Amino acid sequence: MKNLLDGVEEILLMGPGPSCVPPEVYRALSRPTLGHLDPYFIGIMDELKLMLRTVMQTGNRLTFPVSGTGSAGMETCFVNLIEPEDPVLILVNGVFGTRMVDVAGRLGGAVDALPFEWGTPVDPQKVKEQLRKRHYKIVAVVHAETSTGVCNPVADVAALLDPDTLFIVDTVTSLGGMEVAADAWRADAMYSGSQKCLSVPPGLSPSTFSDRALQRIKGRKTKVPNWYLDMGMVIDYWDGAKRAYHHTAPINMIYALYQGLALILAEGLARVFARHQSMHHLLVTGLEKLGVEMLVSPNARLPMINAMKVPPGVDEAVCRAALRSKHKIEIGAGLGPLAGKIWRIGLMGHTARPENVDRFLGAMGEVLGRR
Amino acid sequence: MKNLLDGVEEILLMGPGPSCVPPEVYRALSRPTLGHLDPYFIGIMDELKLMLRTVMQTGNRLTFPVSGTGSAGMETCFVNLIEPEDPVLILVNGVFGTRMVDVAGRLGGAVDALPFEWGTPVDPQKVKEQLRKRHYKIVAVVHAETSTGVCNPVADVAALLDPDTLFIVDTVTSLGGMEVAADAWRADAMYSGSQKCLSVPPGLSPSTFSDRALQRIKGRKTKVPNWYLDMGMVIDYWDGAKRAYHHTAPINMIYALYQGLALILAEGLARVFARHQSMHHLLVTGLEKLGVEMLVSPNARLPMINAMKVPPGVDEAVCRAALRSKHKIEIGAGLGPLAGKIWRIGLMGHTARPENVDRFLGAMGEVLGRR
Repeated sequence: MKNLLDGVEEILLMGPGPSCVPPEVYRALSRPTLGHLDPYFIGIMDELKLMLRTVMQTGNRLTFPVSGTGSAGMETCFVNLIEPEDPVLILVNGVFGTRMVDVAGRLGGAVDALPFEWGTPVDPQKVKEQLRKRHYKIVAVVHAETSTGVCNPVADVAALLDPDTLFIVDTVTSLGGMEVAADAWRADAMYSGSQKCLSVPPGLSPSTFSDRALQRIKGRKTKVPNWYLDMGMVIDYWDGAKRAYHHTAPINMIYALYQGLALILAEGLARVFARHQSMHHLLVTGLEKLGVEMLVSPNARLPMINAMKVPPGVDEAVCRAALRSKHKIEIGAGLGPLAGKIWRIGLMGHTARPENVDRFLGAMGEVLGRR
Repeated sequence: MKNLLDGVEEILLMGPGPSCVPPEVYRALSRPTLGHLDPYFIGIMDELKLMLRTVMQTGNRLTFPVSGTGSAGMETCFVNLIEPEDPVLILVNGVFGTRMVDVAGRLGGAVDALPFEWGTPVDPQKVKEQLRKRHYKIVAVVHAETSTGVCNPVADVAALLDPDTLFIVDTVTSLGGMEVAADAWRADAMYSGSQKCLSVPPGLSPSTFSDRALQRIKGRKTKVPNWYLDMGMVIDYWDGAKRAYHHTAPINMIYALYQGLALILAEGLARVFARHQSMHHLLVTGLEKLGVEMLVSPNARLPMINAMKVPPGVDEAVCRAALRSKHKIEIGAGLGPLAGKIWRIGLMGHTARPENVDRFLGAMGEVLGRR
């Protein structure tokens, strides 16, 4: 039988993730598999935790990758922290805020969704007004709304919260591409994805929990209704004095994440963030030259995911297919109310390099007949 | 900083999994990452589903890898099929049956655990008696109890069930190493792990759901209380006419699973099973020559995980550490009531080769001073 893997081509991944993976990470992925309780592997876990704390800017003891993709990280935060009837406020201005509402509702939370127009950021003034109406056990926000390219003002929201309200922050798309500061934001639970600015294949959700969050978990009246993601047990494997088997860790993906974090720290966080910012400007300038408009106003734009409006009269699916088939470039379509109206151009991690922006601008110009 | 990945050694993995990974699978792991909605990647998914159906011996449409390790597969089966107060019978003779009780209980199932002595198989006669006492919506059993090396009589249990009882079968350790037949067993939900006899690194849980199981999910009174693992949505990504984004699939792990399945099918299921069986006999014969006893009686022994009794007066942890450090061999310790009393020797997938059995027997003989 023909093996389809032989035909996998190198595609320039400029969608909403996965992003391009550096050669060092591919090599890490295929290092020999060790046992999940092997002493050498535990040494790798320990160093990975330290690197992740640096990238997440936290001293939290429980800082580790959940064994699933970014959405598993979201599930983990909510399932551990919510108990039935807990009042939860979720700030919604895109697909991922909407997903939070679904996740939290399934777990029995008394969820209020505070909506904002897609393509605009959360307005802290409105959050403040909502917080006067009801006391929330949990408030949750998406830092980088992957569906729209909007950056939400996480620190401003944090400043409004009661001391006993837990704060959940989604940094799936932002981590490793811009300032993300769990402790400064007083985030109690924060999760990300391996396949965005960390430039590791999808499959892990780097996450962190504050001691306050761990106290809340310990004080639950009911067991966490999810064995696989129960942090009360997972912590004994990732951080116990004697590492207790919980589930078999995804060894080779953890190697890859270790390598991805090591590359970011070797380059330096400040330089990595500056590179994302300058590639963003290079892209936006180029798009403007092509006569394309951006969805988001300049002060709320994310560097790593750029929503550009599909020009009038253009069939977005035809253009995307041409970019993929002729130019070997993947970009993202719009979702929900923005389907057919925008494209999403990712500049995440290893993708965020000048040669990629140039290649994309040339290809897009050709596809639009505007070069 | 020193990169710990450079120091990862090739260890002979003869524990309860992960098992040794063949070079073709390592190469597959590091093929270029594609997007999760890329048309070429969807072709890979489609072929993977066909291969998995062959290995699981099922025609089930929803046959695919859950994006998590084997325990995520367990979680998936229970969280989709149980609703609060549903009567559930779980047959327990080891760690993984015990884990099922915990998982199902957290989800609000009215769980009866029918216990059997660890190291002995489930007795269908006792199951029959229990089934007379109460009508169960779900019955669950572990095929290959990884914690004891016991093979449970899944087909015999299946024959006892009411037509409207759903049957959940754990084949984490058995799949790809011995006969596993979802349809012949009339299993409604069956899950496995990538890191056992499939010889792929840990991170995926190959799973299958019958149409009856899908009907039960569609007819639920409550939403599945787990967004990440909700099969009602995941099916639209893995099997929908238009592949709808749910969560970002673990692309490179899926490549690896594709390759692992392709290798098994190229060798042929019958030959793969015979190889496991003959390596098992080679191991047991060698252990008997060393004067070591097996825990499980011959008719209930699994080929791929072999529980041997720790000889009297021997410190099991010291021996295991010597095997790991001097001989670069990993074996498994006993769990729960068998901690300190047995070792578990895995002969899974790529590990199940004569040179590995010989190397292990030589090393174990030396460590025990009996060669």
